Amino acid sequence: MATSSDQFAKHVIIVGVGLIGGSIAAAVRKRFPATRVTGIGRDESRLAAAVDAGLINDFATQITPEQLADQTVAVICLPVQLIAAYVKSIAAIAPSTTLITDAGSVKTVICDEISGTSAAENFVGAHPIAGGEQAGFEHADPELFVDSVCVLTADPNSPEPVLMKQAWHFWEGIGCRIQLMSPAEHDRALARTSHLPHVMAAITASAVGEDNLPLAGSGFRDTTRIAAGNASLWKEILIGNSTQIISALDHAETILKAYRTALQETDAEQIEQLLKNAADFRSKL
Amino acid sequence: MATSSDQFAKHVIIVGVGLIGGSIAAAVRKRFPATRVTGIGRDESRLAAAVDAGLINDFATQITPEQLADQTVAVICLPVQLIAAYVKSIAAIAPSTTLITDAGSVKTVICDEISGTSAAENFVGAHPIAGGEQAGFEHADPELFVDSVCVLTADPNSPEPVLMKQAWHFWEGIGCRIQLMSPAEHDRALARTSHLPHVMAAITASAVGEDNLPLAGSGFRDTTRIAAGNASLWKEILIGNSTQIISALDHAETILKAYRTALQETDAEQIEQLLKNAADFRSKL
Repeated sequence: MATSSDQFAKHVIIVGVGLIGGSIAAAVRKRFPATRVTGIGRDESRLAAAVDAGLINDFATQITPEQLADQTVAVICLPVQLIAAYVKSIAAIAPSTTLITDAGSVKTVICDEISGTSAAENFVGAHPIAGGEQAGFEHADPELFVDSVCVLTADPNSPEPVLMKQAWHFWEGIGCRIQLMSPAEHDRALARTSHLPHVMAAITASAVGEDNLPLAGSGFRDTTRIAAGNASLWKEILIGNSTQIISALDHAETILKAYRTALQETDAEQIEQLLKNAADFRSKL
Repeated sequence: MATSSDQFAKHVIIVGVGLIGGSIAAAVRKRFPATRVTGIGRDESRLAAAVDAGLINDFATQITPEQLADQTVAVICLPVQLIAAYVKSIAAIAPSTTLITDAGSVKTVICDEISGTSAAENFVGAHPIAGGEQAGFEHADPELFVDSVCVLTADPNSPEPVLMKQAWHFWEGIGCRIQLMSPAEHDRALARTSHLPHVMAAITASAVGEDNLPLAGSGFRDTTRIAAGNASLWKEILIGNSTQIISALDHAETILKAYRTALQETDAEQIEQLLKNAADFRSKL
């Protein structure tokens, strides 16, 4: 255990101990018990509760240079619009050996703001594709990342190769399968696999009509589950990837119009073809 | 047991022993062991396998007058476009004491074709709102209908009140909660709770792009699950309720355009409002 913990990280700092941050903390504590986990947040009573829950060893309301010793990994689990500024503020006081990574679900806006600054030397953007609708570390799960994909966004000029390797090791260590992509590739793909589904689920939920809800079955329940997610967090995700999402919405609208036309014309062959196409894609999962 | 079976039905005929028909059969066999269950279908080897699986007592490839004795309930579990004709063909040889009901997920096209004919005296339209993506009686579940809503569509002129009561008793007997609605009310509501979600799930699945599938997480998985359903069956459902579905699609497109405009204009307040509205509806479930 001591050996694998040495290879992993001596100290992990989680900035933002919510569902994702808490789950990362839980996974580290479970898999690397010799690693110290520090939680950073604004609310001391919440952080104290996270200590009591066994998720973190200790906490602080801000990061000091003393905390950023050798083999420290700082993981920024904040809403996307806050990540880049926080990365830069830590990088300003960190040695070159400190790895800073994040869990933001959009990458271009974050990486663009960091790229070309000195913070880029410490930073490896990440997106572990896992989550849930229920916010707060009370729902943290040490197994949340097992077999989930974690995208690492590689900046060709930086960071140090050794930090890239460390980031790989870190996310793999808590259960992820790693995939390297550019920030733009990530955002293009996630617009289709995550952001468009969220908007479509929200549209479906909004269109149902309250009186009809008693007739909703498991299909409605599943299709709209993610629409219950935190509106404020999702607003930032949608804005952070708006160009790609607009393109995905336009594509969705084109398909919607194809259904509408086929239904208007009672074109049974076309409707079945549209449905088959969708079923084929879905069955490839 | 004999008493409740007497009150229930002496003989249940399931026309179409697939997932739904098989689950109804399984529920009857489990809850009313004294009731005889006959399966009707085209494929004798499949029906023999359903006997072996314990879902039905016996089978035939067509219904004869001899099978329609007192206290017989015939449940038509065929694709929607076949139901009305089948109801009429049974009613033509049935005594007035035979209840004919169905499990079709659209009701107006079926009830309109039966209303005003002599078959209306025997028929009580039904839609048990339960199901799954996997076809075939191998996936039948005697508990499928427990706590699900079954809509009964009442024709004010027919059928006999005693048959209406029997239909209520039948569907309640296998676990459903009964809701009475007109066929038009049913179709308007289901367009929003079931048919629109199906099309939206299918659009989301079609828009993902195959290369992106490895990055699909649980959100995509849930949102598109129903899109894997049988394209041929769903084509008939969509066509059978096209007017209501077109209206629902138009509503969905209006909301989609609102997201698009808000994203184009980076109108954070409007985006959050749209998402909150959806989350509010979803949380009422």
